[in-house]
Amino acid sequence: MNNFVISGVKMLKPSGEVEIANIFVSGDKISKITRGEVTHDHIIDGKNKFATPGLVNAHTHASMTLLRSYSDDKSLMDWLQKDIWPIEDKMTRKDIYCGAALAAVEMIRGGTTAFADMYGPCMEEVAKIVDESGLRGSLSQGLISFADGDKKLASNVELYKNFHGAADGRIQIMLGPHAIYTCPPDYLKKVVVEAEKLGAEVHMHMNETKTEIDDCLKNYGKRPFEVVAETGLLDCGMLAAHCVYLSDEEIEIISKKNVRVAHNPGSNMKLASGIAPVTKLLAKNVTVALGTDGASSNNNLDMLEEMRLAALLAKVDTLNPLAVPAAQAIQMATENGAKALNLANVGRLEEGYKADIVLWDMSSVEWQPNYNPASLLVYSANSAAADTVIVDGKILMQGRELKTLDEEKIIAEFTACAERLTKN
Amino acid sequence: MNNFVISGVKMLKPSGEVEIANIFVSGDKISKITRGEVTHDHIIDGKNKFATPGLVNAHTHASMTLLRSYSDDKSLMDWLQKDIWPIEDKMTRKDIYCGAALAAVEMIRGGTTAFADMYGPCMEEVAKIVDESGLRGSLSQGLISFADGDKKLASNVELYKNFHGAADGRIQIMLGPHAIYTCPPDYLKKVVVEAEKLGAEVHMHMNETKTEIDDCLKNYGKRPFEVVAETGLLDCGMLAAHCVYLSDEEIEIISKKNVRVAHNPGSNMKLASGIAPVTKLLAKNVTVALGTDGASSNNNLDMLEEMRLAALLAKVDTLNPLAVPAAQAIQMATENGAKALNLANVGRLEEGYKADIVLWDMSSVEWQPNYNPASLLVYSANSAAADTVIVDGKILMQGRELKTLDEEKIIAEFTACAERLTKN
Repeated sequence: MNNFVISGVKMLKPSGEVEIANIFVSGDKISKITRGEVTHDHIIDGKNKFATPGLVNAHTHASMTLLRSYSDDKSLMDWLQKDIWPIEDKMTRKDIYCGAALAAVEMIRGGTTAFADMYGPCMEEVAKIVDESGLRGSLSQGLISFADGDKKLASNVELYKNFHGAADGRIQIMLGPHAIYTCPPDYLKKVVVEAEKLGAEVHMHMNETKTEIDDCLKNYGKRPFEVVAETGLLDCGMLAAHCVYLSDEEIEIISKKNVRVAHNPGSNMKLASGIAPVTKLLAKNVTVALGTDGASSNNNLDMLEEMRLAALLAKVDTLNPLAVPAAQAIQMATENGAKALNLANVGRLEEGYKADIVLWDMSSVEWQPNYNPASLLVYSANSAAADTVIVDGKILMQGRELKTLDEEKIIAEFTACAERLTKN
Repeated sequence: MNNFVISGVKMLKPSGEVEIANIFVSGDKISKITRGEVTHDHIIDGKNKFATPGLVNAHTHASMTLLRSYSDDKSLMDWLQKDIWPIEDKMTRKDIYCGAALAAVEMIRGGTTAFADMYGPCMEEVAKIVDESGLRGSLSQGLISFADGDKKLASNVELYKNFHGAADGRIQIMLGPHAIYTCPPDYLKKVVVEAEKLGAEVHMHMNETKTEIDDCLKNYGKRPFEVVAETGLLDCGMLAAHCVYLSDEEIEIISKKNVRVAHNPGSNMKLASGIAPVTKLLAKNVTVALGTDGASSNNNLDMLEEMRLAALLAKVDTLNPLAVPAAQAIQMATENGAKALNLANVGRLEEGYKADIVLWDMSSVEWQPNYNPASLLVYSANSAAADTVIVDGKILMQGRELKTLDEEKIIAEFTACAERLTKN
């Protein structure tokens, strides 16, 4: 059983304050937090480290690492239709596994401990790497009504039955209706039926682009959240990715139905989608988490960068330098992320919480001087500062060395997949 | 004399294309670029590296590293008046040196080879660290008309006389009228007289905030570039930092007077200043370079991040995913930076150009797969990928090991300065 203490570490408290503490880990939990001297058989020296809860990537498509840098600086439809979809059509079970495996390495190396993934088919391959890596994964199959929509839904249901709660509860399964423009209301109602039977939550792209809103108004005379609300889908519990274009009425719906929002500033900027009204959502006490989206539209799975972008973009968008301060950006990436994924007792450094912890190395120049570690993490550090990553009390990386995954082998297999996929 | 070849390296050509080449360095120059096999007594293996021109930080205040994370997430005036200025008033000659020394370490570690710095007094201390580090620095003293404005101008002139062209030409001196709101037209005219006598160029903050424009209109009935143009200052050759709020007429003036713009997306976002009209400026063939601004408003000197922000912010601002593609962001940070600092034969990997070169290590996961190194550098990598940094043919860092500076000593002395400055 895991049993160690991180001693004398600058720790981010749930209040956003920082204090020096000793964090005791026992089994999968933070068993105790103390101040002052400490003795223990297994000590991880926390000197010059900053302890935060593990980062939660609340929206990604892990296996899309295979398409990183394959098609950039293009219009959305050129990108998707000409470059991305034809390659995705060629992806095999092995590709899904290898893409997600590389993503797992990248996430651990960047301090991410949990992620919400929507992709597929073959999401059981992603479940496999979640199991092997020690990460937490909330997985869903992307459901599109045309091209065997019912079969896909059945496959997502099967995934739920086989994997929900697996790997000591580190694997959770959601249903993944892709978006309003790929899932008409009748299909969404089928998803609701299955979700209710299982008690499953849903993960869906919502209100990402202006075109999506315009098309929805044209087709249904209503905006996406209004259409979706009528299907009953929001009552299942929804993790809604993007939420860039929202009317005030839709923000009311989101707030009332307790929809959790995954804000993806990097992807929204790179694809020129727009700027999500984050401060408005936060003002309505909506749970706003952060996601990277897939590596093909970001182009990485770096949650530190996403925190920085969230903090910077909110300020320039509202012309208010006080919008989304550093501690709030970290909260979005940790505690709010855990809520977004519906993970119980995850996302805070507090007694009784799961031991999902990152130790950031503060020795490099961009951490000097060290007046405010939270500020430094968000505004100055880069993800190479992630030194030690712990999930469920298990050490996945220490001193930048991976403990659960064979990085060299993963890169080699991944590279072979990418080369096969993209050769003419 | 430096004499080596970087063999078999993926090289960014001035066209934006990437090809595998051998880069021969002889003395301070790129003497030859070849393809195919190579033999030489001194080979740097370029395998799995990406060679770009050195990054140019076109606007910073290096010694402000001392104030990194000291005051964040505050309104501009609270930040400046309550926190920053009182500490700056206490800065000694030693502080200026130690702050700039830490900045030099950080810049080299992030692939920056040249920077335009405005700060002071005691800019000769910054010149000293430019000399010692091997970097290029275009230095100016920040001139403010009140509180001994004439004395400051005399000191900047003295700096020019003593240091312009020093360190084999790596040190250049500019005059640094701070901004229109700190330098009324009569004072600017005095700067013009001195600049003309010396043949010096000027480095100035321009049109950074909405308040600055409003105040200028109120005081002078004209916008900042119109007021400044009338003083003759633009005819000296100007590096203008920020340029967030520009009228079409001002963009015309900038274009006509060949003003070079230092775009600071990170600072403009963090301080909620606004979004500079970068694509409009580029469309008018204005030289737009990139800068970090001081570490107190960024919070680092990471030019890779600035490239990414420039590329992402332009897209979301114009809702055009084709705005500022990756290769253009790199060009802004390299060739345009060199033009902004008026550095002859700097900023391109081309025969006859100065050997200011960065080799980026492409072995880590966020560089996989490697379809497009330029895209990966801008959208996926972090600055820890800077492996080798060369300026004027001299190696300043290799394999992440600094060759000219004692990092440990610099951090220790810097930390002592910061502690003294901020203790009550």
